[in-house]
Amino acid sequence: MSEYSVLGKKLPRVDGLEKVTGAAQYGADIHRAGMLYGKLVRSKHPHAKILSIDTSEAEKLPGVRAIVTQNDVESGRRVFATDKVLYLGEPIAAVAATDPDIAEEAAELVRIDYEVLPVVQDVMQSIQPTAPRLHSDDTKDGPTRRTIKAQLKKLQDDESQDHSAEIAELNAQLGILEDELYYNISAETHSAIGDVEAGFAESDLVVEDTYVIPRVHQTYMEPHVSVADVDSIGKITVWASTQGPFAIRSGIAGTLGIPLNRINVIPTTMGGGFGGRFGVALTHVPAVLLSQKTGRPVKLQMTREEEFLDGRPAPGCVIKLKTGVTADGRILVRQALGFWDSGSVSGASIGSTIRVRGVYKIPNLKVDAYGVYTNKSGTAAYRAPGTPQVAFAGESQLDEIARQLGIDPVEFRLKNLREEGDLIPGGGQRGGSNEPKVGYKETLQAVADAVDWKNRTKGPNQGWGVAIGDWTNGCGPGGMYVSVHEDGSVRIFHGSMDITGTDTALAQIVAEILTVPYEQVTITRGDTDSAPYATGSGGSVVTFTMGNTAKLAAEDTCQRILELAAERLNTGLENLELKDGKVSVLAQDSPRSISLGELAAYSLSTTGGPIVGKGSFARQPSTPALAAQIAKIEVDPEAGRIKVLKMVSSQDVGFAINPMAVEGQIEGGTVQGYAWATMEEMQYDENGNVNPGFVDYRVPTSADLPTVESVIVEVEAPNGPFGAKGVGEPPIIPTLAAMANAVADAVGVRVTELPMKPERVLDALSRK
Amino acid sequence: MSEYSVLGKKLPRVDGLEKVTGAAQYGADIHRAGMLYGKLVRSKHPHAKILSIDTSEAEKLPGVRAIVTQNDVESGRRVFATDKVLYLGEPIAAVAATDPDIAEEAAELVRIDYEVLPVVQDVMQSIQPTAPRLHSDDTKDGPTRRTIKAQLKKLQDDESQDHSAEIAELNAQLGILEDELYYNISAETHSAIGDVEAGFAESDLVVEDTYVIPRVHQTYMEPHVSVADVDSIGKITVWASTQGPFAIRSGIAGTLGIPLNRINVIPTTMGGGFGGRFGVALTHVPAVLLSQKTGRPVKLQMTREEEFLDGRPAPGCVIKLKTGVTADGRILVRQALGFWDSGSVSGASIGSTIRVRGVYKIPNLKVDAYGVYTNKSGTAAYRAPGTPQVAFAGESQLDEIARQLGIDPVEFRLKNLREEGDLIPGGGQRGGSNEPKVGYKETLQAVADAVDWKNRTKGPNQGWGVAIGDWTNGCGPGGMYVSVHEDGSVRIFHGSMDITGTDTALAQIVAEILTVPYEQVTITRGDTDSAPYATGSGGSVVTFTMGNTAKLAAEDTCQRILELAAERLNTGLENLELKDGKVSVLAQDSPRSISLGELAAYSLSTTGGPIVGKGSFARQPSTPALAAQIAKIEVDPEAGRIKVLKMVSSQDVGFAINPMAVEGQIEGGTVQGYAWATMEEMQYDENGNVNPGFVDYRVPTSADLPTVESVIVEVEAPNGPFGAKGVGEPPIIPTLAAMANAVADAVGVRVTELPMKPERVLDALSRK
Repeated sequence: MSEYSVLGKKLPRVDGLEKVTGAAQYGADIHRAGMLYGKLVRSKHPHAKILSIDTSEAEKLPGVRAIVTQNDVESGRRVFATDKVLYLGEPIAAVAATDPDIAEEAAELVRIDYEVLPVVQDVMQSIQPTAPRLHSDDTKDGPTRRTIKAQLKKLQDDESQDHSAEIAELNAQLGILEDELYYNISAETHSAIGDVEAGFAESDLVVEDTYVIPRVHQTYMEPHVSVADVDSIGKITVWASTQGPFAIRSGIAGTLGIPLNRINVIPTTMGGGFGGRFGVALTHVPAVLLSQKTGRPVKLQMTREEEFLDGRPAPGCVIKLKTGVTADGRILVRQALGFWDSGSVSGASIGSTIRVRGVYKIPNLKVDAYGVYTNKSGTAAYRAPGTPQVAFAGESQLDEIARQLGIDPVEFRLKNLREEGDLIPGGGQRGGSNEPKVGYKETLQAVADAVDWKNRTKGPNQGWGVAIGDWTNGCGPGGMYVSVHEDGSVRIFHGSMDITGTDTALAQIVAEILTVPYEQVTITRGDTDSAPYATGSGGSVVTFTMGNTAKLAAEDTCQRILELAAERLNTGLENLELKDGKVSVLAQDSPRSISLGELAAYSLSTTGGPIVGKGSFARQPSTPALAAQIAKIEVDPEAGRIKVLKMVSSQDVGFAINPMAVEGQIEGGTVQGYAWATMEEMQYDENGNVNPGFVDYRVPTSADLPTVESVIVEVEAPNGPFGAKGVGEPPIIPTLAAMANAVADAVGVRVTELPMKPERVLDALSRK
Repeated sequence: MSEYSVLGKKLPRVDGLEKVTGAAQYGADIHRAGMLYGKLVRSKHPHAKILSIDTSEAEKLPGVRAIVTQNDVESGRRVFATDKVLYLGEPIAAVAATDPDIAEEAAELVRIDYEVLPVVQDVMQSIQPTAPRLHSDDTKDGPTRRTIKAQLKKLQDDESQDHSAEIAELNAQLGILEDELYYNISAETHSAIGDVEAGFAESDLVVEDTYVIPRVHQTYMEPHVSVADVDSIGKITVWASTQGPFAIRSGIAGTLGIPLNRINVIPTTMGGGFGGRFGVALTHVPAVLLSQKTGRPVKLQMTREEEFLDGRPAPGCVIKLKTGVTADGRILVRQALGFWDSGSVSGASIGSTIRVRGVYKIPNLKVDAYGVYTNKSGTAAYRAPGTPQVAFAGESQLDEIARQLGIDPVEFRLKNLREEGDLIPGGGQRGGSNEPKVGYKETLQAVADAVDWKNRTKGPNQGWGVAIGDWTNGCGPGGMYVSVHEDGSVRIFHGSMDITGTDTALAQIVAEILTVPYEQVTITRGDTDSAPYATGSGGSVVTFTMGNTAKLAAEDTCQRILELAAERLNTGLENLELKDGKVSVLAQDSPRSISLGELAAYSLSTTGGPIVGKGSFARQPSTPALAAQIAKIEVDPEAGRIKVLKMVSSQDVGFAINPMAVEGQIEGGTVQGYAWATMEEMQYDENGNVNPGFVDYRVPTSADLPTVESVIVEVEAPNGPFGAKGVGEPPIIPTLAAMANAVADAVGVRVTELPMKPERVLDALSRK
């Protein structure tokens, strides 16, 4: 896109220098005068009744300033366990002391008497009638059935009117629910498009598999940390490492029953988030409670072990998947039944199960998914939440079908891709259903071309795997201000967090529109008391939303600049042009112009005042973002180790505002997918213990990493700023399946349970 | 003004609670991890050559981390004395150490060798040929004459052209300068309107006096303090107690040669300012230099003694004043010659000497004023800079003239007041020259009516004094944002400092326009990295400028609110009304309405995004603000003490947005004027020592204070927000003269030198 001066360029990150020199302030760097140190008192059992909590001995320890339990939560909202603990490490109380060691010692001195209960860690065991029940033992229905049944009972009991029509409708709703009923269900979702029975009946080939994906941790480098400071009039200030300061504000407000304007959240630089840094439960609310009780600032920081025990990782799941195709390779039908490991609380990414539809035309689709309680911590988002798991199942099975049909896996996919105007099955759930132009074919073709797919070769124990996945580019509200200083420098002020380099993209957009050098633009992040509302940085939302916001703010600034110049140069707006950081009078014998700095200085003495532009934006339909990958690997048949020989990752990004940043995201996402495919898993034992650190929980080191070749595809997104889409999440989606497909191609054995660690690969080889 | 719901009401200050509970964060409350403590190394002599500076011993003291001198100032701009010191306490170096005691000890260990020079402290001595010269000893011309003479020389030397016309003009300019030439002149100003010679010739009575007004300190409660933190990429953050964060930013940028966007100034709550808190020299720049050198945060806080030695107080002055009138009491002519004590640097409020014109029609006026160097610290603004001094001279002499003419002093003033359409002599200098309606008469009449002036009575040694003064309401640039939260609360975000309760006025303006309760509005101050540019809080500028800015921002917010409501309620803007915090559809059978909170929540899912309004404003002509006062006092002829029996202060405020805040300003200004009139003065001895604390420098206590009755006059100001004017400065202006006039009325002796402390009153009585 040569028409741009700043956009589309590989410019260095605006925050690069402060990060590499250590100037960036992370949560651990925050220090307040008189600050206390907090420590959570955690459950020693994965499942137990709490018989008593005795804090008296801990309170006597010199240096202890406060201990809070659920009794200190006036709103009554659950912050700490009271009657029962559901996982090892669940918070029961919190201690504040004058130094971290005293706080830790005091936490150990809080005496809790337990009555130990039986434990369930596996989702497929947990749904059985014999499993210990975590939350309720009086029904085997899931929450949706319970709700419908309660409504039915109410209508049946009411004899004053004839409810037969409503009763029939509710019974029909019950009917579409899975016949088999499960225990320990935390949440459920059901959807059906077309007629799956008919679809399977028409199919020439039906393949059915069960895929098992482990729980993995986001493994952000910075553990959760808060500094809370509640002042003498009750105003709460929280320094928080978070992806969404405004979400933290609402979360604290909601949990503690405090109005929004009594809380200020100051976001610190984030040491990684990946979706795991939105909640208030882990450290923010306990720190606030301790500060409220002591009247002093309190820092509460989790250790790496606490992160593994009480973080909110990505859910593992079991997906039973059945697909029917014609002999010539058209997908007719797909049915999925998913069981997602919610841990102790409701949720997990069950809604993502619908993504078994992939990027394909599938006329008949039925998806049933359940969240299942287990004795683990709850879960949260992790880069394209739920979708790498679902794509692993969906794209592995398609590969298997292509193999059984004898069709090239790229050809097979191309044949079934959705096209312009196709409906996305169940698309109403996320994003629009009627698609504009999306680069499905371009993205898949690009990665195939990059490896010269048709002419690929392989040696012994080597194989090629391909996979493709889509993601719905999120969209949320945001506001932004742009101002021009007297020295011509430009400042952006906003409140959204930068995880992936979005600040750099925003600076590029503003520099482009104001026609100033990129280096002349600085960007400042406000806290929730100062910045205009901004959506949380998740769902690949920031470039799309805040990019549009930046465009509007910069355009508003331009308008003010031109009006000022018209006033100053005594001419009409139509005679003026903003170019190269100055406004010039067009079509004149003696050219006149004025720089932005001169205009900014001049503005200070005009009625209109300083040059400030405002942008505000919330929603426009967005288009799916796509990633396709091809891996070439070699399996060591003796050691079971997988070596990546080639990894190419293509992505439709709409328009690459900063290709270097885009490549960084593609590489990062692909590497995380690679790690999930081959080494990462949280391993819980029957006592609730997990592999609690980077010795036992393997993440790739530089030595492990494949070189990722990035291929940027640009199919302009209609509502994106300059055609851009969000880029953060898609590249992790296809990798799990691409790796498994490559292994199957290499050794002729399909691994359906991740990670493909050496012992599992050897085990699969032995089953061959 | 009953049409308003929130404006014109005596509402509590928005910052009241945080100030009384101690939640407000002052400079001294700022603490940063790893912070060092700074101390300035100060001159031990009031006038001396510096022969050598030896920091070696100080550097050896354990805990000392850095010592900076002028050698560390890369820009070369003067921060520390090098060759010569000009006053006792002048900074020569600065030390940073791990605790304040070590820093103080180290400062004492810096060895400086001096060659002591003769000292001059009195302005009338300093202008003499015999006086020691502070800055230059090669000319007796002031800077204006020197400039003109240099131009003359250049023209005369240039033989290539005929410059006779230009030479004649420059000689004419020299001619209007005072004939007598003075030494140690730091600055000068000269203006002439009409023909003073002719004026005096026409006069029936000419009175000539010399008035002497002492240097006084602003005596803000909080001494100057900075915390500077320069990070590893050189970004400077300064926590500063200041009236103008943007002025501090430019000041640091200018002094150290650093771009504006490399400096962030975070303003802390101010413990008083009164004009004395704008400069960067006292603590901000030295703290930055120490932080640059150590890489650690540095706090630098002045003691009270340092405040008196090295603060920037209000200048004292000597004003020779000569006025001619007709026998029937018309002022024909006035001539002033002012000598202002600049201390060691150029400046002082010499430009205010023109204010001898008062609020009167004076056809012939000549004013010559000089800044004079002395061996004291420099000076700065103090509430209506220079004007209480000048009004003391002008209004004292008018009173004397009225007495000599036998005309009632109120009648005499009323007779000579300017009226609508009158030019302000020399008014071009500040504000417009062609006046709209100004409440001169209303203000003077109001205070006279309040005491029933015509029927006033007095006992022995009692007297009544009246005086009136005007002030030019300042105007500067400012920007502001207003946003509405999902819970209906409203936030104002801006960057101007609140000295006098201006935040409260801004909240009232926004609440009024958005039709929400005052309590629903919160106000947040940003730092210079986040807030839009705002003018410094001086010159009674904030209510006028930021009030207009707030009005514009609130109106912009309203527009967005109405557009949103039109979209949400599916109707046209013309059918909608914003009232009581909700938008209603007018003229409808079934009334529909939507609250601001609902609209804010709705806005987050619209294309237009969050509700944010923007205001930006800089200049509109403002009208003079006026204060008139009448004091009734009693002199104790034995002790020389003056007791105030009655003190009434009227003020034309345009429109009182918050009458309680306005009364607070009137009371505060009057009390400061009373203190200057009767007790405050900085007393320097020949060694440069000054009375350095509140034991020796008398400020009034509660027991000293007169009860001030406030009379609010509201003559609407054309461009003020809702007709309001700035109110902070005027009430200090007339008090000095009103007190002196009351003393003259009581005991028949006019005191022309302030303060009227007991010994001076007794001395005057003895001269009777």
